[in-house]
Amino acid sequence: MPGVTADGAGQIVGQADGLALPRYAGLTTFARLPRIEDVPRHDVAVVGVPFDSGVTYRPGARFGPAHIRQASRLLRPYNQSQRVYPFRGQQVVDAGDIACNPFDIREAIGQIERAAAGLAPDGQPLVALGGDHTIALPLLRAVHRARGPVALVHFDAHLDTWPAYFGEEYTHGSPFRRAAEEGLFVPGHSAHVGIRGSLYDAADLRDDATMGFRIFSCAGIDDAGVPATIDRLREQAAGLPLYVSIDVDVLDPAFAPATGTPEAAGLSSRELMRFVRGLAGANLVGVDIVEVAPAYDHAEITGVVAANLAYEFLSLFARARA
Amino acid sequence: MPGVTADGAGQIVGQADGLALPRYAGLTTFARLPRIEDVPRHDVAVVGVPFDSGVTYRPGARFGPAHIRQASRLLRPYNQSQRVYPFRGQQVVDAGDIACNPFDIREAIGQIERAAAGLAPDGQPLVALGGDHTIALPLLRAVHRARGPVALVHFDAHLDTWPAYFGEEYTHGSPFRRAAEEGLFVPGHSAHVGIRGSLYDAADLRDDATMGFRIFSCAGIDDAGVPATIDRLREQAAGLPLYVSIDVDVLDPAFAPATGTPEAAGLSSRELMRFVRGLAGANLVGVDIVEVAPAYDHAEITGVVAANLAYEFLSLFARARA
Amino acid sequence: MPGVTADGAGQIVGQADGLALPRYAGLTTFARLPRIEDVPRHDVAVVGVPFDSGVTYRPGARFGPAHIRQASRLLRPYNQSQRVYPFRGQQVVDAGDIACNPFDIREAIGQIERAAAGLAPDGQPLVALGGDHTIALPLLRAVHRARGPVALVHFDAHLDTWPAYFGEEYTHGSPFRRAAEEGLFVPGHSAHVGIRGSLYDAADLRDDATMGFRIFSCAGIDDAGVPATIDRLREQAAGLPLYVSIDVDVLDPAFAPATGTPEAAGLSSRELMRFVRGLAGANLVGVDIVEVAPAYDHAEITGVVAANLAYEFLSLFARARA
Amino acid sequence: MPGVTADGAGQIVGQADGLALPRYAGLTTFARLPRIEDVPRHDVAVVGVPFDSGVTYRPGARFGPAHIRQASRLLRPYNQSQRVYPFRGQQVVDAGDIACNPFDIREAIGQIERAAAGLAPDGQPLVALGGDHTIALPLLRAVHRARGPVALVHFDAHLDTWPAYFGEEYTHGSPFRRAAEEGLFVPGHSAHVGIRGSLYDAADLRDDATMGFRIFSCAGIDDAGVPATIDRLREQAAGLPLYVSIDVDVLDPAFAPATGTPEAAGLSSRELMRFVRGLAGANLVGVDIVEVAPAYDHAEITGVVAANLAYEFLSLFARARA
Amino acid sequence: MPGVTADGAGQIVGQADGLALPRYAGLTTFARLPRIEDVPRHDVAVVGVPFDSGVTYRPGARFGPAHIRQASRLLRPYNQSQRVYPFRGQQVVDAGDIACNPFDIREAIGQIERAAAGLAPDGQPLVALGGDHTIALPLLRAVHRARGPVALVHFDAHLDTWPAYFGEEYTHGSPFRRAAEEGLFVPGHSAHVGIRGSLYDAADLRDDATMGFRIFSCAGIDDAGVPATIDRLREQAAGLPLYVSIDVDVLDPAFAPATGTPEAAGLSSRELMRFVRGLAGANLVGVDIVEVAPAYDHAEITGVVAANLAYEFLSLFARARA
Amino acid sequence: MPGVTADGAGQIVGQADGLALPRYAGLTTFARLPRIEDVPRHDVAVVGVPFDSGVTYRPGARFGPAHIRQASRLLRPYNQSQRVYPFRGQQVVDAGDIACNPFDIREAIGQIERAAAGLAPDGQPLVALGGDHTIALPLLRAVHRARGPVALVHFDAHLDTWPAYFGEEYTHGSPFRRAAEEGLFVPGHSAHVGIRGSLYDAADLRDDATMGFRIFSCAGIDDAGVPATIDRLREQAAGLPLYVSIDVDVLDPAFAPATGTPEAAGLSSRELMRFVRGLAGANLVGVDIVEVAPAYDHAEITGVVAANLAYEFLSLFARARA
Repeated sequence: MPGVTADGAGQIVGQADGLALPRYAGLTTFARLPRIEDVPRHDVAVVGVPFDSGVTYRPGARFGPAHIRQASRLLRPYNQSQRVYPFRGQQVVDAGDIACNPFDIREAIGQIERAAAGLAPDGQPLVALGGDHTIALPLLRAVHRARGPVALVHFDAHLDTWPAYFGEEYTHGSPFRRAAEEGLFVPGHSAHVGIRGSLYDAADLRDDATMGFRIFSCAGIDDAGVPATIDRLREQAAGLPLYVSIDVDVLDPAFAPATGTPEAAGLSSRELMRFVRGLAGANLVGVDIVEVAPAYDHAEITGVVAANLAYEFLSLFARARA
Repeated sequence: MPGVTADGAGQIVGQADGLALPRYAGLTTFARLPRIEDVPRHDVAVVGVPFDSGVTYRPGARFGPAHIRQASRLLRPYNQSQRVYPFRGQQVVDAGDIACNPFDIREAIGQIERAAAGLAPDGQPLVALGGDHTIALPLLRAVHRARGPVALVHFDAHLDTWPAYFGEEYTHGSPFRRAAEEGLFVPGHSAHVGIRGSLYDAADLRDDATMGFRIFSCAGIDDAGVPATIDRLREQAAGLPLYVSIDVDVLDPAFAPATGTPEAAGLSSRELMRFVRGLAGANLVGVDIVEVAPAYDHAEITGVVAANLAYEFLSLFARARA
Repeated sequence: MPGVTADGAGQIVGQADGLALPRYAGLTTFARLPRIEDVPRHDVAVVGVPFDSGVTYRPGARFGPAHIRQASRLLRPYNQSQRVYPFRGQQVVDAGDIACNPFDIREAIGQIERAAAGLAPDGQPLVALGGDHTIALPLLRAVHRARGPVALVHFDAHLDTWPAYFGEEYTHGSPFRRAAEEGLFVPGHSAHVGIRGSLYDAADLRDDATMGFRIFSCAGIDDAGVPATIDRLREQAAGLPLYVSIDVDVLDPAFAPATGTPEAAGLSSRELMRFVRGLAGANLVGVDIVEVAPAYDHAEITGVVAANLAYEFLSLFARARA
Repeated sequence: MPGVTADGAGQIVGQADGLALPRYAGLTTFARLPRIEDVPRHDVAVVGVPFDSGVTYRPGARFGPAHIRQASRLLRPYNQSQRVYPFRGQQVVDAGDIACNPFDIREAIGQIERAAAGLAPDGQPLVALGGDHTIALPLLRAVHRARGPVALVHFDAHLDTWPAYFGEEYTHGSPFRRAAEEGLFVPGHSAHVGIRGSLYDAADLRDDATMGFRIFSCAGIDDAGVPATIDRLREQAAGLPLYVSIDVDVLDPAFAPATGTPEAAGLSSRELMRFVRGLAGANLVGVDIVEVAPAYDHAEITGVVAANLAYEFLSLFARARA
Repeated sequence: MPGVTADGAGQIVGQADGLALPRYAGLTTFARLPRIEDVPRHDVAVVGVPFDSGVTYRPGARFGPAHIRQASRLLRPYNQSQRVYPFRGQQVVDAGDIACNPFDIREAIGQIERAAAGLAPDGQPLVALGGDHTIALPLLRAVHRARGPVALVHFDAHLDTWPAYFGEEYTHGSPFRRAAEEGLFVPGHSAHVGIRGSLYDAADLRDDATMGFRIFSCAGIDDAGVPATIDRLREQAAGLPLYVSIDVDVLDPAFAPATGTPEAAGLSSRELMRFVRGLAGANLVGVDIVEVAPAYDHAEITGVVAANLAYEFLSLFARARA
Repeated sequence: MPGVTADGAGQIVGQADGLALPRYAGLTTFARLPRIEDVPRHDVAVVGVPFDSGVTYRPGARFGPAHIRQASRLLRPYNQSQRVYPFRGQQVVDAGDIACNPFDIREAIGQIERAAAGLAPDGQPLVALGGDHTIALPLLRAVHRARGPVALVHFDAHLDTWPAYFGEEYTHGSPFRRAAEEGLFVPGHSAHVGIRGSLYDAADLRDDATMGFRIFSCAGIDDAGVPATIDRLREQAAGLPLYVSIDVDVLDPAFAPATGTPEAAGLSSRELMRFVRGLAGANLVGVDIVEVAPAYDHAEITGVVAANLAYEFLSLFARARA
């Protein structure tokens, strides 16, 4: 690939060189990184999961991975906020997209779990780009195989612990209920952040608490402030392997119009980025960024923030490794 | 409802009066017609089928019925092209949307078939607004119950007679293969119109012919002209009950950007409207207009043409009744 | 209507059931509530006022009610922020749109006042969806008939107390001057919130103060904070019947692009929702949400926040009743 | 103004020079022509009429003149189709916009008539850029003052001869009925071209014929062809002063999405341009191009075709003068 | 790459299998074909040239290659119009993008020429995706090295034979004048097709004729018809190596809004596709498709037609080889 | 120009009168102010610099000046935040656009410097509307001629002190490095505000510090708050002539989608406006507002904030003069 630069002894392949091949040029991979086929091994993989058959309102997140990749062309080698080169001390690759059946949710879930596990033969972490939130369940299962139960931090407008829709137990509204039933995360050490919007029933909150979640609502964050909330998230996760799942609808529709079930009055991009950076030092083992539905995007607003979130997580992995 | 006008002896309720309630005002029903609950009986029903779980590329046609209704506000009482008042000699209603399960294609197909049959207790014809093309199968089944096999005229860029996708036999690419297997239309008296674009295999054409379809491709229409093609469609259908299924991707993307699998170089809106009007005198028994995916529309271009197509069909029904 | 659920003894009809009829399906009413014709009586009515002939810059708010209704499909039964079921203890209906003459402002104002009064035979409160801000005047008149002068809280970038435009005294820039002249609100107990942007003259501020308004500008809110500003609004309104008028241009254009006279540097959706919830306990008697011009919206950003604002007010009414 | 070039003896000022000042640069005037204030006299004036208070559906044509001007930046000095330099043998100017009251249709009509007459002290023709179709009436009145009754060729999807809307006789649906009543055009020598879409009543057609119009419908043009239709338009107008009024909704929404009352199945831009060029040799005395509503445009599709239509008319004037 | 299928003896790698990996999934290459690095050799290469520093109006074609690739995901293996499998009898690859300097036109032209020549070590033809029309010059130079002077068929609204802009001889308005000066095409056997719109001077046409071009204007095509025009293009090219250059602004803005210098009244997509297919049997040696500026696209209208044009050319190459 | 009003003794010409000529009407100048040709002299000039050949990612800022002017139509005479009439005590004019060569960056830089100097024969300050950030260099040079080195406050997501791109030293990424080399600003008294996003190298920060800049990053502003940061900016600039350069990408993409290199997590419009107003009392000598790329705007969100920023600066000039 023209412009791919080598780092140090040439063992790690970083981004295509933006001063040789302009950043708008070249085939599209996440952050202009090498494809998984282009390098012999990897430390962290970014992988697309173009699945949206679990949505209950606006579909379209199947185009999310392609859109986030295109919007990631602007990412550069050095993260000044975290003071780290995310692509230098670790081999990051774009593992392409997981092939999954749009007509059979259960088959798709199996495909995602197997593919995710296959990308981590040596326990490498994944940054998964959705796709709808259904995919969090098989991703958590794959992490669970390798790491056991995790502390879960879930950024979302919605709880996603509803029992079922139209008789279907596997949808984008239920991954964390299924995960609770399967023991994939540690009760009492897991949280929803950014919750707001209307619910089906007050009992939804009680059920959710029973599963072991703490809720940091947008209104609560208004009162407590972002830094204090970060402290509580860090305390809660301390020591445990940490999995972070971000539904972009945790952002206000102004910051993330391209999503399936928008809710007014959400976080700003700056607040969300601050939350992510605030997780530094935690034992991060996996990440998903979901519910980007590009048909509703404008000027890549949503794509750009999603790509930057992935970049911050890759930076956290790099720091953990350093 | 303010502005609803009565016709003749008051037995037929037409559109809300555009001179009392401006056309942009009032709750949205198709053409500002009464809801099915608002009148004791109906002659023709317009019904939405907000189902898009059968798509293979861009989803979003689940929002099609709401979008076409909104774009139908401009329709007025008299059709000058067909010289008929479509809402005067027959009671047309908006029957709302058929509730169908987005997570279980087979259940949805059953729901659609039952609801369609239920809307026609006395054999009333339906104008169905999709939704993706999967819905044509249950609609044809419902028509078949009442009328037996039909002559089928299918306007589309694609054949929609593929065997299956990802193991699923019921998708938007297969309704007419299933219909052939079930004997829902009359071989040798059915046609695809507007076919173009790439195929999986040359065998697709041979298989299609075996099912009894004739193909009028866009390239062929360029050579033969629209009027001569209409003549052949009329000859072919003569005497038989006629069912017309329109996938809006038969139109060029310039005329119908809001669709799931756009193909360049299609029909113009004027050509398609001419085709529909050219079917006057046929024994029309049912209609569907599908694959309007509003997230991709601009200024209601696609919505307006879809609404006008429905209007032309309602006019054909009115003329048949006169 | 399929999916309409009954509450308790069946006397109150709530939203269409999102688990029977998907939320994107069914004819469009506000929050999928029953139409006024569908129930014998109502406690609160949501009503559209599709009038925009009073605008001075971008027109298009005549399509506001239809747009907000479509964007309200995501609203669910339980408001977790206010801990109330807004559609359970009170019968809320969608009263459709008020028919008003687009070519005669004065006739339209009369139509709106009469229709608003007619929807409140027993003093029921209205939540009016505009439409441009001209409509606040007849709505205030209708409230005044039943309740006398109100404390007015007006969220807006603009004062809307200009004397006249082009010789016309009844436009979207003047409703509160007319209201002052007619004694519709209580001087000294009324306020503008979110004011910013350029004015015709410094005298506009002095005139406005003379009418009895207090101004909480965006800059002032930056300094004082939202909670302290809420406290002052509550003190000011205390005891009096409260009418709230929200021009969505009080929001920054990022949060509400779809409006007629956008002004940079406005409130965020989260701040505005916080303000509304902060009015709990006040004696709320009427609400309007105006100036949504859908041709300028993107991905329903503006529609969603407008629908949620209405939902918060309906929740306030429910709490007041509980 | 940098880049303004002089022609011949320097007496005529043409377009800003695109090789000195790039065409995307410089203050916006129609075709980068001088403003009326910049030259001592003019032969033809292009003038904006930003009025849209006469619309019955989508407003927004008040922004039409600014939008068409911006889209006219690409126009160059030589018209190869008509083989003429439209800005060389005649002084064309941009006369700015006519100030008209958005709140009082009758006052606005008076303002437009007076301003139009004032721009033609020596009988100069105008090319008016709307604004909605209401403006055709005062423009015809101004022409009538100078020239007497005209042959009228009216390109539109709609007849615009309805009696009144909501009691108002002066709207965008009625200019040609008023013009008939006032004797502004010659019955039997006037025509509507491109008519299609639904009507309120069959009687609309009979009424229209009584006023002296001939109708060339889109369907009729399909049968007769554009060249034969042009011949009939030329015959009909022969010898008489000719006024041409173009509502851009005569175009299919694919070619002109930015309009207030779109109708499916209209003319293509190429057909409409051919019609206009086909009027060469007629005694053209005035032109309006109306109903461009920019909020609904995309990538200036509608703006570009409107600007080019004006350019073709200016070329006709130049040829008539040569 | 999951889903890449082999053809015949496994020597040719075709598209990713749309029934294993959904067409919206997987990293983006043209038509989901292998990258040049993925196969040992190729017969035809599709290559992006993301360069737009030669534009005179709207820039943005640098994003053209990425956009066309994304819009090419719908292309399937069999071309029914040409009755050929374009990816079966020849190895087609996506060669990625040519790195070229956005700040130095002359350096970029050199880079393009060298890279194009390098992709054709054995004289393989290229299908180049622009980028602006500046790139046609170096592409023609590369073809000239291998094949000598070509018959040139140039589809465009504009002549692109202007001498210079702002003193710069290498821009998107001048490639064919430079090509004429360098003897890259055969005078008397070359043509512009689809010309329309305003010119700087009548002399532009005379200069152009001097260079050896024939002009088939849109107006002329209206008169002669597409089939007769194709015949003349074929006669003219007969026997000579043929190079085809398509500026998408040859299409009407309705069919190709996403371009830099749109001109009203152009070809339809169906006409242009017919032209391309009509070149079957010619000795095609190279192709470019340029001036797709994605920021102005809607729902991939322009991207889809550009991708289909490339597909038709690849089919012509396949037929020539068969 | 109808509606141009005179102030006081008629010596100063202000905005066109919005009560005579509606604000959407009339030829477009900044804030509806007179053109430079319309008045004998000026105190402050607003000038467009439609140049974008220095961009490294999305081009299109060449259309920025026209877009900001169109979005400035809503500006009114009195600035309530600053309590000043910006167009009353000083003659502000729209000086049109500087003609600059899109194909030769160095020539363009020379043109801009000369034109800027020419607009300030008596040292009048300019408010320049870009265009890309390349233009800051010649603007600083012109200021330097008259005022010597300035304190520079630079609002941007990026440092813009990179050495070169693709061998070119004059691009939108390098103006402040060149300015440092040329001694155009005072080291130790200059700052970047709003910095965030990824960098090429950690050394970028060290290099930048060497040039004498202080960095107030977005993250830092989160911690310190806007008011404290303003204090530090004021201290730093104290006494020196102050030049302010605003790249609109300092704003979050939600607030300024229309820009060339968007970075997530930026300032809000309210914060940026507060910063600008906080500079009151400084010795402001020049301003540029750059990188507005209208093809990516929606509903003029970006245009409106850019126009308002210019308005705030004009108000600062007015206060300084008072």
